[in-house]
Parts: sequence; C-alpha cells; structure tokens
Amino acid sequence: RINGDRLWETIHAIAEIGPGVRGGSNRQTLTDDDAEGRRLFQRWCEDAGMTVTVDQMGTMFARREGTDPSLPPVAVGSHLDTQPTGGRYDGVLGVLGALETVRTLNDLGLKTKYPIEVVNWTNEEGTRFAPAMLASGVFAGMHELDWAYDRKDHDGKRFGDELERIGFKGEEPVGQHPFHAFFELHIEQGPILEAEGLDIGVVTHGQGLWWLQVTLTGKEAHTGSTPMPLRKNAGLGFARIAELVQTVAMENQPAAVGGIGHVDVYPNSRNVIPGKVVFTIDIRSPDQATLDGMKAKIEAEAPKIAADLGLGIEIEVAGHFDPVTFDEKCVAAVRDAAERLGYSHRDLISGAGHDACWINRVAPTAMVMCPCVDGLSHNEDEEITKEWSTAGAEVLFHAVVETAEI
Amino acid sequence: RINGDRLWETIHAIAEIGPGVRGGSNRQTLTDDDAEGRRLFQRWCEDAGMTVTVDQMGTMFARREGTDPSLPPVAVGSHLDTQPTGGRYDGVLGVLGALETVRTLNDLGLKTKYPIEVVNWTNEEGTRFAPAMLASGVFAGMHELDWAYDRKDHDGKRFGDELERIGFKGEEPVGQHPFHAFFELHIEQGPILEAEGLDIGVVTHGQGLWWLQVTLTGKEAHTGSTPMPLRKNAGLGFARIAELVQTVAMENQPAAVGGIGHVDVYPNSRNVIPGKVVFTIDIRSPDQATLDGMKAKIEAEAPKIAADLGLGIEIEVAGHFDPVTFDEKCVAAVRDAAERLGYSHRDLISGAGHDACWINRVAPTAMVMCPCVDGLSHNEDEEITKEWSTAGAEVLFHAVVETAEI
Ligand SMILES: NC(=O)NCCC(=O)O
Ligand SMILES: NC(=O)NCCC(=O)O
Repeated sequence: RINGDRLWETIHAIAEIGPGVRGGSNRQTLTDDDAEGRRLFQRWCEDAGMTVTVDQMGTMFARREGTDPSLPPVAVGSHLDTQPTGGRYDGVLGVLGALETVRTLNDLGLKTKYPIEVVNWTNEEGTRFAPAMLASGVFAGMHELDWAYDRKDHDGKRFGDELERIGFKGEEPVGQHPFHAFFELHIEQGPILEAEGLDIGVVTHGQGLWWLQVTLTGKEAHTGSTPMPLRKNAGLGFARIAELVQTVAMENQPAAVGGIGHVDVYPNSRNVIPGKVVFTIDIRSPDQATLDGMKAKIEAEAPKIAADLGLGIEIEVAGHFDPVTFDEKCVAAVRDAAERLGYSHRDLISGAGHDACWINRVAPTAMVMCPCVDGLSHNEDEEITKEWSTAGAEVLFHAVVETAEI
Repeated sequence: RINGDRLWETIHAIAEIGPGVRGGSNRQTLTDDDAEGRRLFQRWCEDAGMTVTVDQMGTMFARREGTDPSLPPVAVGSHLDTQPTGGRYDGVLGVLGALETVRTLNDLGLKTKYPIEVVNWTNEEGTRFAPAMLASGVFAGMHELDWAYDRKDHDGKRFGDELERIGFKGEEPVGQHPFHAFFELHIEQGPILEAEGLDIGVVTHGQGLWWLQVTLTGKEAHTGSTPMPLRKNAGLGFARIAELVQTVAMENQPAAVGGIGHVDVYPNSRNVIPGKVVFTIDIRSPDQATLDGMKAKIEAEAPKIAADLGLGIEIEVAGHFDPVTFDEKCVAAVRDAAERLGYSHRDLISGAGHDACWINRVAPTAMVMCPCVDGLSHNEDEEITKEWSTAGAEVLFHAVVETAEI
C-alpha cells in the first residue's frame, strides 16, 4: 500500500508554486514558475535516492537503479505544466504518483529487477506552445527537435529560447532512452467514473485529435460608416465557422467532440470591423474515420463560408494525433492490479491526449485513471478526493512493480 | 485661400509620432505618444500666437483673441488620438485644418470679432477607454467627470490616472466654456463622396449608436474529455450573438449597421472550452426608432441564445448617443462656403460618431467632410489626397470666418 497522505501533501506542496486566482494552478510550461516546480520535483527525487537527468527537450528522468542495470527502465510519469487557469491534479497526480511509487519501494526496502524512472514531460498542455504533448512527441520521433524549438508562444518567444532561459535545456539527445514499458496515472477529466461510482479507469484507447489553426483575413474598417454590403468582417466569419464546428461535432455524436478555445481578434477595437481573426479548432474522436471525416468536412465548408463573406482563409495543422490503442499486456497489468486491490473499475477511452499516447508508439504503454468531480478539468475548480488519488496511485504502484519485477 | 501644402506637411509631421506598422498611426489616447503629439500641437499653436489652456478632461483649447474679447469663441477642431491601427487623417485633419484656419488668418493679417479656439478633444476614439467622444461628452454635460475618470482600459488602468500621468490633467472645469458655434472638419470614413466624385460633404445629421458590452459566462472545461451535452461554451454563445447582430442589421437595411469589433475570450487556450467571453456590440442608425428597435431585439434575443446554451449573460451599455440633427445656420454656413468656393458638394449623414455630435447639444454646430479613398477608415491604409484636404480646410476656413465675423 502506498502512503496516500504523503502523496496528497506532496501534490498540495507543489500547488503553492504558480497558484491560480481561485485555488487552481497557473504553472505554464517554461515559465519561471515551471522552473521552480521542476527544481522542487528534482529535490524530492534526489531525496528519494534517484538521479535526475534532463534531455534536450527539458524532459526530466529521475532514475532508481534496478538489480540488473543493463535492462531498460520501466518509466512512469506525466507532466507538471498546467493550463493558465488549470487544476492542481491534471498531470501533477501522474508525476507525483510515480514519485510515491519510488518512495513506497524505499519504505518497503524493495529492489526491482528493472530500473524505474519517474518522468516529467515538458509542455504537455500545449497552451503556450502548440502542439500539446510536445516533448513526448519528439521523444517518440513524431516531431523534429529543431521544429519543436521553433514553436512560438503568443508573444513570439521561441520554445528553444525559453527552455534555455529557465535552465532546463539538458544534454541528453531526445528519445535515445528506450523504455521497457511506460505507465501514466491521470485524472479522468471526464464524467464517467464519478457518475458510475467507480474507483479506477483502465484506459484501453485514446481519442485522436486535429488542431486546425485558421486565419481569416477581412478588411479593417469603421463599424459606423462602412455600409453592410461593403464589409469584409473576419469576426462574422469566425462566428460561422464556430457554428460549423459545433454542427460537425453534433452530427457525429456521441463518438466525437469539437470546439474552439483559442481566438485572437485584430485589432480588437470596439469600432473596427475585425480585419483578421486567428483561432484554433479542436476536433476529436476515438474513431479514425469519424475524425478524418470531421476534418474533411470542416476543410471543405470553412472556405465556402469565408468566400461568401469576401474573406481570405488559411488553415494549418497545429496539432494532430491518431486514435490510440494501448498495449494489451500493460493494460492487463493495470486491470489486474485494480482487481487484486479490490477497486471497482471499468475500461475507458481517454477523451484527452496524454504523453502516454505518444510513448505508446515506442514502448508498451498503459494508463490508470481516477475520477474527478463533475468530470471537470482545465478549470481551477478541478477537484478530486484523497481517496481517489490514493486508489489511483496504488494501482499505478502495483502495475509498475509487477512490470519492473521484484 | 488656405495653404494646402502647409496643412499637408503639418498632418504628416504629426504622423511621425506613434507611427503604425504599415504607414498609419497608433497614437492611442493618454499614451506617451499622445502626450508627445499634444506637445507638438501646443508648440504649433503658440507659434501661431495662440494661448493654450487645458481642461480637467485634458481637452486643449488654443485661443486666438477676437476684437471683442467679451464674446464667446467660435470653436473649431476634432481629435488627435487614433485607433491602434488607425489612419493619419481621422481626427488629425480636423484639428490641423482648424490650426490652418488660424495660420491663414495670421497670413492675411485679419482679425475676427469673435475669438477663435482650436480644440483637441481627449479620447474621441473610445478604443482604450469606452465610450468614444468621452471628453466632448463630459463637456456637453452627458457624463459626470468622476465617472469619466473611472473608465478603465484593458489592463485596468483608470482614465483619470493616465491623464495625470501624461501631464495633461488641466485646471479648467469642464464645460464652463461656452462656444458661439462649433465646426469640425473630418474625413467621411464612408464611400459616398468618392463614389459620386464630389469635393465636400455638408453634414446635416449623424447616426445614433448603442455599444452593448456583453459578458457571457459558461464553464471552462476540457475540449477533449467533456461530452458535448455537458458543455457550457461561451465561445459558441458569442458566435450565435454575432450572427444575431448581423441579422438585425441586415433586417434594417440600408438605414442601419451592426457589428462586433471587440472580443476577449477566457482563458483563450486551445484545449479549454471558453468559460467567459466579453465583447461589445456596435449598432447604429440615423433613425431613432430603428436604432432603439435593434437594441430591443438584441436585448430580447441574446438572453435566449445564452439560456439555450446554459450560459449566464450580462449586458451593459458601454456607449450611446442619439441620432443628431446639426444646427441649420451652421450647416448653411458650410453649404454656402462650398458653393461660394465652387466645390461640388452634397448633404450627408455621418456614419461615425464625432465630438461635434455632443457639442451640438450645447452650441450651434456643423461638420464639413472630405472624401477618403474607398471610404476606408479605422485602417492604416486610410488615404486622402492633398486636394481633398485642401478643399475641406478651405470650406472650414470660410464657414468659421463667416461665423466669427471679420
Ligand atoms: N490531459 C490533458 O489535458 N492534455 C492536454 C492535451 C489535450 O488533450 O488537449
Ligand atoms: N470618427 C470616428 O471614427 N469616431 C470614433 C467613434 C465612433 O465609433 O464613431
């Protein structure tokens, strides 16, 4: 059994760094607060006897040696970065649940055959720099390192420069670090487990995603003196494409979602017809054909909407992953652990993307989920109970230890 | 005849201060650039023998004494502040055209019976601090001074504090400064004069306006893991209300316009369903019943749209003026001047709001307009010709001198 109180305290200790305005967290990737959180995490890992290395994407690997150091590690972790108005558990539970695994092994004086590595992946959230899961994507060979370094935030700052600035641009080449297996514990971020009163989600699949960044170009003009027929209103174009995304998502119910979270209106003045709007469409489905069909429909219809309004349109892919099927053996290790520990559980499809989704391409991977209140995440009000986090971490511990072999 | 070359050079000299990124201007109210522009204007006025006073709203009055100093002045001017991506002529032509009136009187060695005052009204644009035409509104008794001081910009800075910071919070109580008449020269900002090949617009009326600031409150949640039926998507609410505004404007064609220039989405992250959107609806009509009917329809329908989506809604008035009928005698002075000078002209309704619209409530007022290329304004590409500005300033000169009496 793991120490649920210790885990809970550790989670709330790191939440002191980069606090939100209403009790949540704002520790966006590669900010000073991210750096401070990373240093605290590193100290905790070293206190637990681990050795921390950092790769060229800033991903942190805290290693507990195995009895056979020639074997690749069983890796376990998630991310410490948060949304601008994020919760205290999204990502954090997975990293600190992994740390709790090692602390528990230390308490029990147990050695595993395979080394264990606790991992903190850089820029999982994708808010400051798109796409999400950037470092795990480079690790899995999905993106080039230089391409990742060139991602820019809203202020035009480069990922590579910011990584260097906060002191976490490591030496280790990315991905030259094979895993025996990878496990990630995460809050569900959806409503199913709580609604069904279950302790544990055994994640068998993950939804696929497209992020389509759209730039609509109209003509800035006076809202009062420009006759309606002469307007090229990029804001109205945005409104119609937002409705299109909603329609496309609703047509594919229940196996799809769609929405727009990011919108920048230029010049954003009350009496200027928007001359430019940049926004990012987020569409997801666990089914490849549905996902790609939604994308095709949006790519066909959005340009018609733009043309109707006399607007220019550009659509770029700002993020993408295919639906994921996790590794059968790792999934079974999670399910068996929940069963053995007497936790109620069910199989789940992850609605969100996770580092595990990329790592699954290069190592056998599975995920453990615990419920969260009202299925709410990416909100400062995100909430879980100590019991839920304890159950999740306990299942994680058992799956990891079984795979790393005593 | 005025000196068209001198006027043109003066306009382009002030455009050096707060240049835009594509040849326009960014000299937003109460910024350091606004202050620098004001100081240059003050120097020019003093060089022309005028005395500059500043009222408690930062409005600048440059006085040329009349032969009977006991008479109230004929005031003439506009504004030197600009949009964030504004043109070089909107407002500036009216202030510097007024200065050219005085310079021409000096050249001719002419004295007027009534004093003449060249006025630079503070915060006409309303971009940084809503509402537009703020200082002329206080001058006309439409707003309280303290209420105006409390207006906040996007960063929460107070109008009163910023006015003090740039050193233009004057001593003179606002509005205790009666005018014999007020004249404002402005670019049309619409397409009619250019399309009809005319030199001068004689402004008989102005459209009325409502700015309705809407706050939609939904629930921030994960775009991937939140099922469609559980969403409270404030961004979708914005989209539907934008379409409503478009519909209401189109229903009232051609005597109405409507649009949305200002939109802030929170937290503005690609994978967070917007929990809050704040935006400002701009509706206008020269007809009072049409204008108020549009407002009533939006106020009736927008809450239904919000309720349908499970959103909270708050609607506040961020700006308002009724349709305006300018003073018959002043309008006749403008029309007669155009006629006398041999300029082709027509009567116009102003599509935009102007300081003249407020001043018309406390003094006999009229406006002169000159064409602008493609009717384009509130755009860095705003353009006029030297000939157009010369014609406008000449008509202004004649209307002012006739009213101020030689
Ligand atoms: N788990 C999580 O919130 N990931 C962020 C990436 C995404 O799914 O949008
Ligand atoms: N003339 C002008 O652009 N005024 C700004 C106020 C308005 O929106 O009409």
